[in-house]
Amino acid sequence: MRLSRYFLPTLKETPSEAQIASHRLMLRAGMIRQGAAGIYSWLPLGLKVLKKIEAIVREEQDRAGAQELLMPTIQPSEIWVESGRYDDYGKEMLRIEDRHGREMLYGPTNEELITDIFRKEVRSYRDLPKMLYHIQWKFRDEIRPRFGVMRGREFLMKDAYSFDLTPEGAVKSYNAMFVAYLRTFARLGLKAIPMRADTGPIGGDLSHEFIILAETGESQVFFHKDFEKKDALSLNPDYAADLQPIVDDWTSIYAATEEMHDAATCAVAEGDLVTGRGIEVGHIFYFGDKYSKPMGATVQGPDGELVNVEMGSYGIGVSRLIGAIIEAFHDDNGIIWPESVAPFKVGLINLRSGDAACDGACDQLYKDLGAAGVEVLYDDRDERAGAKFANMDLIGLPWQVTVGPRGLEKGMVELKNRATGEKTEVALADIVAKLA
Amino acid sequence: MRLSRYFLPTLKETPSEAQIASHRLMLRAGMIRQGAAGIYSWLPLGLKVLKKIEAIVREEQDRAGAQELLMPTIQPSEIWVESGRYDDYGKEMLRIEDRHGREMLYGPTNEELITDIFRKEVRSYRDLPKMLYHIQWKFRDEIRPRFGVMRGREFLMKDAYSFDLTPEGAVKSYNAMFVAYLRTFARLGLKAIPMRADTGPIGGDLSHEFIILAETGESQVFFHKDFEKKDALSLNPDYAADLQPIVDDWTSIYAATEEMHDAATCAVAEGDLVTGRGIEVGHIFYFGDKYSKPMGATVQGPDGELVNVEMGSYGIGVSRLIGAIIEAFHDDNGIIWPESVAPFKVGLINLRSGDAACDGACDQLYKDLGAAGVEVLYDDRDERAGAKFANMDLIGLPWQVTVGPRGLEKGMVELKNRATGEKTEVALADIVAKLA
Repeated sequence: MRLSRYFLPTLKETPSEAQIASHRLMLRAGMIRQGAAGIYSWLPLGLKVLKKIEAIVREEQDRAGAQELLMPTIQPSEIWVESGRYDDYGKEMLRIEDRHGREMLYGPTNEELITDIFRKEVRSYRDLPKMLYHIQWKFRDEIRPRFGVMRGREFLMKDAYSFDLTPEGAVKSYNAMFVAYLRTFARLGLKAIPMRADTGPIGGDLSHEFIILAETGESQVFFHKDFEKKDALSLNPDYAADLQPIVDDWTSIYAATEEMHDAATCAVAEGDLVTGRGIEVGHIFYFGDKYSKPMGATVQGPDGELVNVEMGSYGIGVSRLIGAIIEAFHDDNGIIWPESVAPFKVGLINLRSGDAACDGACDQLYKDLGAAGVEVLYDDRDERAGAKFANMDLIGLPWQVTVGPRGLEKGMVELKNRATGEKTEVALADIVAKLA
Repeated sequence: MRLSRYFLPTLKETPSEAQIASHRLMLRAGMIRQGAAGIYSWLPLGLKVLKKIEAIVREEQDRAGAQELLMPTIQPSEIWVESGRYDDYGKEMLRIEDRHGREMLYGPTNEELITDIFRKEVRSYRDLPKMLYHIQWKFRDEIRPRFGVMRGREFLMKDAYSFDLTPEGAVKSYNAMFVAYLRTFARLGLKAIPMRADTGPIGGDLSHEFIILAETGESQVFFHKDFEKKDALSLNPDYAADLQPIVDDWTSIYAATEEMHDAATCAVAEGDLVTGRGIEVGHIFYFGDKYSKPMGATVQGPDGELVNVEMGSYGIGVSRLIGAIIEAFHDDNGIIWPESVAPFKVGLINLRSGDAACDGACDQLYKDLGAAGVEVLYDDRDERAGAKFANMDLIGLPWQVTVGPRGLEKGMVELKNRATGEKTEVALADIVAKLA
């Protein structure tokens, strides 16, 4: 993409309404704009990252055997009355009356609707297990939306739901999502620690939050320092096999959120206990028949009797993840994208737009990199070098290629690694092979 | 995908609430389920088709130079008050009050919000032209939702918006979308006829509807029989060049909707005039400064003066298209998907699940087709042959491969073309090459 054509309204000044780095940087880098409190438009650069994250989340859900469907944003109130949560949810639920005066709502989560779909279609234990998910916009009418997409009102969430005949089956489904989450966050470049968590308004008795560390995290977390060595990227699980050993491996190390941690009973030696601020990026729940029972989601078991299905739900905050990633990866100059989610892999800087040699070399490089499957953002604007460098650092693409008249005379360009800041001179002829 | 695992609740009986073929078939084929009047969940098979259509729409928008962003579903009322449409829209607009009593709404379209984004970010004619689009759920509170996804309340729409300095520039943008629409519908297997249309509540003076023919179409249309020979699939436009000749070629042939057609003045000879029922699948508008003027969306022109930008908007009903495609392509037995949007290319039928030879051959074929990049739905269930055939016809995949014990003895399987019904015996060893 040529920057001269791209709709990328970056800002030099720091917007005063933004209190944390990710919010500030997403506004400055032209990724989002606020439409109303806690409700954002995703401009092209922001949407590109959102889609990359969504694609990784989807791939790992599919790999774990979950099937994608798509439920609507607007739900009827009746099913929430059935489950007993219509009043519980309070003012955070965006309640809507349609033209016929029927009570509707903008879904903050989908346990009720998926249970409604399931109970109407599935009759027999032979059709189990089933794991269904969707990636859809949700709305929670936060009393004080803030921190940009980290605590917005309209947000994109991946939510999966498992249906099993027995508690043992449900734990298998839970374990599959547990492992899929480890892989997902690792692929996003994040070190997410699973922590025993409170089940809150979803209910149930088994639950883990996946938490990444960041100074601006919303809550205090405590964990054994052994987690610093754990690496989920190398996990290559067979989802047909027993995943309990992997789950045990990750849950045997101490990690707990503020609500679950008790210094008095924590067995970890003081020198081994690490504490920090954490951001929740995923939350998984096993809650048995909490919804299936009141809503009558039963299947016929092997003996002919009707059984309430055992359910779990599994959420990832897809839009919030962008904020979390930026909180984890930025410096004073801007964002530093992990390569897996970077909107473009390479930023190409033409130091002297209008100069025939620079234009020619850049145009050719832009074409060749594109042909090699490398996504490039090409700064072809007539701007001073300093502004171009600052802009590219702000946007945070993993690699910057700078083409200037002096280097070109020697057939060289400069390659900069955004994360390390390291700059090297590379022959123009070698740059495509190096980046492809 | 193995049918034994797939969440595909097909129905043998015809649901009584469905009045038209597409609604009936989408329910029977397990593509959608209603959550509330005019609000649907997309089950895995339906979502797969929806995504294929979305991908084709997106590719053609990108090719035409439009840039994708994503606006939220919930909008503040203020911008609609500014444009003067807040009251005009009446009860079809889903109005919402948030917890602080602020008036919000679920966007039925996005002229106001995109104009708001534009006016805050773009200052100079140098940044024009710009064409921005998104693919997002919309809500229109239809008084009587019906015909399934054809007239639903929550629906998926691609809407693009163009911004130009001059009327001439705006017509160029209009032409680019005109041609992109021709290509889009042709790639979806549809013969869409552009017709001069009334601009309705969007406003403006230049507008075309893209209409496909189907018996159950919502309105009467009139066109010259020459349209029957037109083919948009071969169009390979250069969007940097003048597209007026292509537009002229397609608009010089008579075509008009009921509201625009006047038998008294229509110049087409009676024998050349075709009439039929049509379904609107796209609608494009050029409306000048209808929104930019009241909302103050100006840029600085080359002479330094402030100019209201010239705008157009361009919609495609993505979810409605599925209904339209089924209306155009079905028979008494079910859906007949065009290959470009088929949820799977091949349906593999194991005539005797449990028979070692049949299972072995099918498993191998399923694996080999997958490895060759062919999407297969494999009916591995223990069901009678008749039920499997009927189910596969209902779902409407382009190709059916049937593996039975008698054929296998000779090393043969049966290949059926769903559209023509033609059946041929093919050597098991040749089938992958034939379908890849």
